[in-house]
Amino acid sequence: SAAEFLRSLHPADSAEILSTLEPDIQSALVARLQPTELAEVLGQMDEDDAAEVVQHMDVSALADVLDEMEPDVVADLLGELEPEAAHQLLQEMDEGEVVAPLMAYPEDSAGGIMNVAPPCLRRHMTVAEAFQFIKEHYQDANEIFYLYVLDRYGRLIGVVNLRALILAEPEQTIEEIMDRDVISVRVDADQEEVAQLLARYDLLALPVVDAEDKLVGIITVDDVVDVLEEEATEDIYRLAQVSEHAEIFSPITQAIRNRLPWLYINLGTAILASSVVSLFEETIAQVALLATFMPIVAGQGGNAGNQSMTIVVRSLALGEIDVDSAWKALRHELMLGLIHGVLLGVTIGLIAWFWKGNPWLGVIIGLAMLANLIIAAIVGVLVPTTLKRLKVDPALASSVFVTTATDVMGFAIFLGLATYFLNWLR
Amino acid sequence: SAAEFLRSLHPADSAEILSTLEPDIQSALVARLQPTELAEVLGQMDEDDAAEVVQHMDVSALADVLDEMEPDVVADLLGELEPEAAHQLLQEMDEGEVVAPLMAYPEDSAGGIMNVAPPCLRRHMTVAEAFQFIKEHYQDANEIFYLYVLDRYGRLIGVVNLRALILAEPEQTIEEIMDRDVISVRVDADQEEVAQLLARYDLLALPVVDAEDKLVGIITVDDVVDVLEEEATEDIYRLAQVSEHAEIFSPITQAIRNRLPWLYINLGTAILASSVVSLFEETIAQVALLATFMPIVAGQGGNAGNQSMTIVVRSLALGEIDVDSAWKALRHELMLGLIHGVLLGVTIGLIAWFWKGNPWLGVIIGLAMLANLIIAAIVGVLVPTTLKRLKVDPALASSVFVTTATDVMGFAIFLGLATYFLNWLR
Ligand SMILES: [Mg+2]
Ligand SMILES: [Mg+2]
Ligand SMILES: [Mg+2]
Ligand SMILES: [Mg+2]
Ligand SMILES: [Mg+2]
Ligand SMILES: [Mg+2]
Ligand SMILES: [Mg+2]
Ligand SMILES: [Mg+2]
Ligand SMILES: [Mg+2]
Ligand SMILES: [Mg+2]
Ligand SMILES: [Mg+2]
Ligand SMILES: [Mg+2]
Ligand SMILES: [Mg+2]
Repeated sequence: SAAEFLRSLHPADSAEILSTLEPDIQSALVARLQPTELAEVLGQMDEDDAAEVVQHMDVSALADVLDEMEPDVVADLLGELEPEAAHQLLQEMDEGEVVAPLMAYPEDSAGGIMNVAPPCLRRHMTVAEAFQFIKEHYQDANEIFYLYVLDRYGRLIGVVNLRALILAEPEQTIEEIMDRDVISVRVDADQEEVAQLLARYDLLALPVVDAEDKLVGIITVDDVVDVLEEEATEDIYRLAQVSEHAEIFSPITQAIRNRLPWLYINLGTAILASSVVSLFEETIAQVALLATFMPIVAGQGGNAGNQSMTIVVRSLALGEIDVDSAWKALRHELMLGLIHGVLLGVTIGLIAWFWKGNPWLGVIIGLAMLANLIIAAIVGVLVPTTLKRLKVDPALASSVFVTTATDVMGFAIFLGLATYFLNWLR
Repeated sequence: SAAEFLRSLHPADSAEILSTLEPDIQSALVARLQPTELAEVLGQMDEDDAAEVVQHMDVSALADVLDEMEPDVVADLLGELEPEAAHQLLQEMDEGEVVAPLMAYPEDSAGGIMNVAPPCLRRHMTVAEAFQFIKEHYQDANEIFYLYVLDRYGRLIGVVNLRALILAEPEQTIEEIMDRDVISVRVDADQEEVAQLLARYDLLALPVVDAEDKLVGIITVDDVVDVLEEEATEDIYRLAQVSEHAEIFSPITQAIRNRLPWLYINLGTAILASSVVSLFEETIAQVALLATFMPIVAGQGGNAGNQSMTIVVRSLALGEIDVDSAWKALRHELMLGLIHGVLLGVTIGLIAWFWKGNPWLGVIIGLAMLANLIIAAIVGVLVPTTLKRLKVDPALASSVFVTTATDVMGFAIFLGLATYFLNWLR
């Protein structure tokens, strides 16, 4: 049967299959799985898919399933449901009090991705006692990442890895083998900071502490892997002016919501740039070939500005620079803009001269190119660093400003110069 | 002293400080660190930074340091040196035969990121024997991720996690507690596939096997975290037409190599688009306001095409679609392009009408907008999926084709329609 087939797969694979099925077939299959089986499969789904799968389930049956799942996953799933339904489920669950506190933190903070803190050791325990402790308290755990050591107030004072425990002599104390330099993260830190810390120190898990240094949770590397993918997707989509919620096969109405607002914003800025061109219609009527070269100057400024901006945005996201490096980056990009501007300006100047037979056209377009590449360097650095300083995601809105600046200035400088030197062009 | 200060930090932090120092200060500090200390610090550096730090070191001193490092990291570091120097170091090292085979695989394949296979269990061992085996063979390991079980031919037949081992009774056999469904990867798989597998199944490590299913290495999650960051950066930079080797403070000559070729390619395509405009200079001379609206049609096509393309590229990279989904994606994007085209076309049509007082201008620009958004949908899907089919990275070259198509077609359709209906516009 279909249920048996699902059972024979890895839960990650059954999850993928289940989420692609039609709602009524889904319900029929879900009804045939045991609570523990369904729990495993739901644990592998995106929270929004999982919420869809369970929406028609009976409250008490669903509560039994949720009790078998990891509390952080349950918290995310409940966050997708109506507040009323979530509240009822928390009441009905045995593990409700464990899950409820996890729902209090913002979705993309350390608290939002953490799991319940694992059972912890005390420093005066012996290694033999620690083994006994693990046998008693870790029966249901999927995985042991590290064993943390707490003082009597619940504050984090050390960490032991399983390898060290196995290699130690039974009569040694935990205090003797623990590592006191525990790298931890505050519960209100951004998930991007969590990912950077874990990547930097090659950790399998990161303990989460509150303002008093008390252990409140743990973030495991498998969740951080998801965060890294999510954050990269978010930046890639935002840089392309698509909502971070976009998916390739989103329903059309959702896809429109994800993309059309950005197209309208771009329409607005394009009209702004066009109104600059409009000021020079007299000039263009006299020298129509200006219309031919106009998009080249604006477009190359946009491309160069986009290069600078993308490097700055990514370096900010990876923590390779912070906003204080803005001036150093500006100097670097200005130097590059100057060199690129001279090279591209000379190239397009020569091409324009030989194509249209007018050396002055070449001079004007070359100078306009140089000027616009310098502008591109300035906005490419200052826009993302300023947004970051204002606590706006630099990936979110930088492209709009960079394109607008290079279009407006590209048109203005090229057509302005052409109008000023009109007699040489006619 | 400075050396003592470095010693007091986590190796990841000393590595960062050391790589920012001037070469002569670097050498002075490096000379003051013990081989094991230097090994730890080098292990945390990018391989190119590490290669710079060690380039002036004496061969036998460096070989001692490399012997203390993880073989995969040593292989990457040696790959950055002159082949002659690398060969000498391999000869001089005690662990040379362990490192040499790792150097044979392409840098971004499973073989290129794997480490030496850890000591493995046999199925008839008891749990007590396994503990003894670990104490004997894992003294120097940093971390134990999983314990793999091999048959007599070295083929991978099972996996045990440490938690299961600790919870088991001493007299149970490994065969009884091992998991037979081992997820593994072939040594020639792409690192992107490795990252997808590990993320999908929430693993801490992935065993690497050869064509005969023999275990040849292991890839650990900390290295996959680096791969995820690297691959995301590669895609973000390539989509912005920047070499994936770009860094914010690359030396200027390097930065020029990373970016200028792309700007010249864009210059070429921009000239191509301009030559289309050039065909219509007569029309523009008569109705100069066409120059005002021309960039709007081309630009909106570029934006919409870039949205579609980016979503397709990212979905391909995450394995959410493959090239066979191209037709389904095309239908989805065409529907969206049609709706966006009608909405944006009507909007810009009305704006053009009221701004310039000519309804026919509105009709022409509206139709051109609709047509260009449909073209944008087609190229936005077909370009990246075709590149993927041709085994070219879709992130690498898609933007060039999409921009060129929407610029060329945007200008051609708008100015072509305007020329055809010229009498209504004058
Ligand atoms: Mg959460
Ligand atoms: Mg999660
Ligand atoms: Mg790392
Ligand atoms: Mg988890
Ligand atoms: Mg974010
Ligand atoms: Mg971000
Ligand atoms: Mg390698
Ligand atoms: Mg590596
Ligand atoms: Mg995962
Ligand atoms: Mg490693
Ligand atoms: Mg790659
Ligand atoms: Mg890739
Ligand atoms: Mg453009």
